[in-house]
Amino acid sequence: MASINDVAKKANVAKSTVSLVVNNSGYVSAKTRAKVEEAMRELNYVPSQLAKNLSSRRSNIVGIVMPDVMHPFFATFIKYAELKLFHYGYMTMVCGTIGREQIEESYLDMLDRKAMDGIIMGAHTLDIDRYKKTKQPIVALDRFIGEHIPVVSSNHYQAAEKTLEILLNNKCRHVIQLVGSMILVKAENDYASCCHELFLKHGIQVHQVEVGHNTFTTEKYKKAAEMAFHLYPDVDAIIGVDMAIMECLAIAKERNIHVPNDLKLIAFDGTYITRIGERTLTAIKQPIEKLANASVDTIVQMIEGKITAKKEIILDVEVQLGDTTL
Amino acid sequence: MASINDVAKKANVAKSTVSLVVNNSGYVSAKTRAKVEEAMRELNYVPSQLAKNLSSRRSNIVGIVMPDVMHPFFATFIKYAELKLFHYGYMTMVCGTIGREQIEESYLDMLDRKAMDGIIMGAHTLDIDRYKKTKQPIVALDRFIGEHIPVVSSNHYQAAEKTLEILLNNKCRHVIQLVGSMILVKAENDYASCCHELFLKHGIQVHQVEVGHNTFTTEKYKKAAEMAFHLYPDVDAIIGVDMAIMECLAIAKERNIHVPNDLKLIAFDGTYITRIGERTLTAIKQPIEKLANASVDTIVQMIEGKITAKKEIILDVEVQLGDTTL
Repeated sequence: MASINDVAKKANVAKSTVSLVVNNSGYVSAKTRAKVEEAMRELNYVPSQLAKNLSSRRSNIVGIVMPDVMHPFFATFIKYAELKLFHYGYMTMVCGTIGREQIEESYLDMLDRKAMDGIIMGAHTLDIDRYKKTKQPIVALDRFIGEHIPVVSSNHYQAAEKTLEILLNNKCRHVIQLVGSMILVKAENDYASCCHELFLKHGIQVHQVEVGHNTFTTEKYKKAAEMAFHLYPDVDAIIGVDMAIMECLAIAKERNIHVPNDLKLIAFDGTYITRIGERTLTAIKQPIEKLANASVDTIVQMIEGKITAKKEIILDVEVQLGDTTL
Repeated sequence: MASINDVAKKANVAKSTVSLVVNNSGYVSAKTRAKVEEAMRELNYVPSQLAKNLSSRRSNIVGIVMPDVMHPFFATFIKYAELKLFHYGYMTMVCGTIGREQIEESYLDMLDRKAMDGIIMGAHTLDIDRYKKTKQPIVALDRFIGEHIPVVSSNHYQAAEKTLEILLNNKCRHVIQLVGSMILVKAENDYASCCHELFLKHGIQVHQVEVGHNTFTTEKYKKAAEMAFHLYPDVDAIIGVDMAIMECLAIAKERNIHVPNDLKLIAFDGTYITRIGERTLTAIKQPIEKLANASVDTIVQMIEGKITAKKEIILDVEVQLGDTTL
């Protein structure tokens, strides 16, 4: 493959001149430019992206760090974010964090080393202090990780209100709430916490059953669902994330509990898996495409130095009425 | 942020010496190295990955190009491939091709420009001739795209045999086959073609219904499934990809057709969505994790110049007996 030296020799110019032409930077006369371009064509020279990156101090890469890239919520997010990033001229790096210690830390290190221009962070297991050390662009998906880091999230309080409304319409008074973890500090803008508070305020009895923090395997969801049916067989509704509620539907069938007559199920996320198969789930739908677009708009603005004043973008959720409530 | 110049100045060495220390290349005395390292520490200098990449002529990035990164098959593939690549020290770039003209071409261009070290290609809409032009490492997932490009795939013929076996065990004689496209050239190692041939050989009547080439939307699957029920109401089995069969299950319910008593359904891919909800699908399971691992092993061997003789890796499939056959 022809090198930049070959091009310089053929065009009879300095190597640095070829570099200026390739990177479109600095002054080069039209005549010289034409000469260099002709030499590049003749030699079939492909400029190295690596050299361009170094000269621009940009990799044109945005990292998306999520607990599990296979999970339907994250996979959908990545799909739309990648498309939007592509239109802005950025490539998308992905990383799943589950089961890998220190991975967020090493991604932040890579960001500091300019291996990527910015990160959309959907996994937050690190201490907030670590994030303070990084001066490079980061956008947080769905959770606060520092004053200086913009957040894009669904309106969890609104989601909880809509869940409450469905429960009240279905006359549910006794509910199981499948939650990630009960020992985590409750965030103000957290669906599970908002639900819990609102339900109690309306006199609905709530039992919380733990799925486990950062858990996204079918087995864990199934175990939690089984535990819920075992501990509290008399409830009239169960709420939880999509995959957990799919497991509840399966267990209800095994136990001959009629959904929705005898048990109501409401899922949170409302990903595409709640709309396939014989029965659709009643769900609170996160606006995943909009979350992805807003995250990308924000990270690109930060990378390009056009940071907007708006540091928090909160998006509306929607109700999907399915076959698991009346 | 401290620059390489600042470090050189502080350590009282040439910039190129700092570069040698950072990149661990060339001879630097222990004393000088210590001096440089101390200066880097004191100035809190973070070496740029971009400079390292240029010096090593590597980006340490592997691209995964798939039709749709949200689709459960591809999302699962990406999950395992990313994990494996990470362990080899590579980062994972993803790209979905559906709806984007020329995208494969521009990824091949990026590969030529060394924006990434290799590509695992799961989308093949380009002419095979285009692939011949690229000398950089490419591994093809599931389809032949050139003599010089290794292929990793499931054993589609075996998959067809196992499908036939299920049909024969269920005494099915009249089958709808939901296929991507009927006008594409049939590959020898193609599940749909193998099935068609084998079924006919065993006297099973087959109707092919087109879902559409490179189609991965719920709407298209649903339309094809409805068309199938409409055109051939008297069949005793339907085979197709996971999402299409999920739609068939829903339509059968609407039409009061009992699955599996009156209609058998067999899915191909056997992704996690066939195992959630009230009924599991009978499916031919592709070994997605193994496909991902083999693709990554191969691309890394190619990048590192350790190409093995084995240019074609064909992996066994498994039967998942679910609730949609007897």
